[in-house]
Amino acid sequence: MREVVRLLPHENIVYLGDTAHLPYGNKSPQTILRYALENTQFLVEKNCKLLIIACHTACSHALREVQEIVSIPVLGMIQPGFELLRKTTRTNKVAVLATASTISSGIYQSLIREHLPNMELHAVACPLFVPLIEEGFFDTPAANWIAQEYLKDLKDKIDVALLGCTHYPLIRSTLQKILGPRVQLIEPAAESARQALDTLKSLNLLNPSLEKPTYEFFSTDDPEKFKHLGKIFFGSSIEQVLQKTIEKK
Amino acid sequence: MREVVRLLPHENIVYLGDTAHLPYGNKSPQTILRYALENTQFLVEKNCKLLIIACHTACSHALREVQEIVSIPVLGMIQPGFELLRKTTRTNKVAVLATASTISSGIYQSLIREHLPNMELHAVACPLFVPLIEEGFFDTPAANWIAQEYLKDLKDKIDVALLGCTHYPLIRSTLQKILGPRVQLIEPAAESARQALDTLKSLNLLNPSLEKPTYEFFSTDDPEKFKHLGKIFFGSSIEQVLQKTIEKK
Repeated sequence: MREVVRLLPHENIVYLGDTAHLPYGNKSPQTILRYALENTQFLVEKNCKLLIIACHTACSHALREVQEIVSIPVLGMIQPGFELLRKTTRTNKVAVLATASTISSGIYQSLIREHLPNMELHAVACPLFVPLIEEGFFDTPAANWIAQEYLKDLKDKIDVALLGCTHYPLIRSTLQKILGPRVQLIEPAAESARQALDTLKSLNLLNPSLEKPTYEFFSTDDPEKFKHLGKIFFGSSIEQVLQKTIEKK
Repeated sequence: MREVVRLLPHENIVYLGDTAHLPYGNKSPQTILRYALENTQFLVEKNCKLLIIACHTACSHALREVQEIVSIPVLGMIQPGFELLRKTTRTNKVAVLATASTISSGIYQSLIREHLPNMELHAVACPLFVPLIEEGFFDTPAANWIAQEYLKDLKDKIDVALLGCTHYPLIRSTLQKILGPRVQLIEPAAESARQALDTLKSLNLLNPSLEKPTYEFFSTDDPEKFKHLGKIFFGSSIEQVLQKTIEKK
């Protein structure tokens, strides 16, 4: 969202945080797909002209299915991340750090096998990073020990590591310390926002108005908690969050 | 469940693990209540004669509401934990370790204020214990650092600590090391099972059959993952797990 605001300063944004179901990263493909389809329905009813699934785990299991059920363009995080990996590595030895569910989906593995068969990919599941970050423990001895545990097989093996989860940039400095200064850490947010800009431009859908845009925030669990955490990620404070009720059958 | 099997060896058991929505421990009261009511409906339709809500967080926010909508006895974990605290402490200085949501519900605090106004209670939220345990990291330097961080204000202040979350017995040895041998760690599972036995006895509802009972396991997310984790908690392997589908509205 921060990158979208930066690159598309005149667009109105509707943001939905599915906090009642988080974390996605250790749930099954079918469950993640079900949540993603429900969220899509909500956002489409808000009359969005473009949809970004800004969660790697949801993209891994639901991007294609979401694209099939809506008529607007749908962008994800995987393809931008893959592009960035391709452009950044010089040794063709890279790592993807992501949730258990993203890694076990095999999505990066098959993209690379198909398009860059000479690339050596280390796909590393880091399930505790999200809870550590949500607890604010990202620069602690515990985070350091856990990150070392997850990354111990990468030593001197890669030149680029992709942060394949929206949370991971917050634990960046710990990861950089462990992987060493020669490993470049990359994140796909800016690339994804650039693709959104290109898409809207090519469809002639950019907002011509120069008025101050509106940002609407929704969460499926308690809006107050979302406000607090949202500020850490978004960088600026979030004034109002509304709750999207999940109706019972 | 292990304690119920031990004390009530002739009863058939239906177990539901709401894995599609876990963890409950950092979700809001309303969301936890909604999940608890859905789960209750499922179990009541299985014709259970008694219901145990074996999750402290769910009990904190939904026990009374669940009791109101069903006609069978409903037992929780909070009241057995409170009984055990009362019986065990000699100094009247105790701690309750639990999820953020259980602690912020204030349920132990108000029970103690009402019935044992002279007891000094330290209520400590330990949000990272559940993810650490689910990752199998319960006896590691990271678990040790995190537990020390959570428990640092308890040093020499208590003689009993209640493990107020179904996961915490797995991290018991780390907690014991930090709190020292003079602090007694207690867990309410056996007390809760004993209350189930007493309740069924008093209602004349114990199963007279001596045949081998049946244990049915359901999970709301992937049954295979549940099987794996269930074994760690239950102690014996779980042969079959069925999926409870959560229907869309």
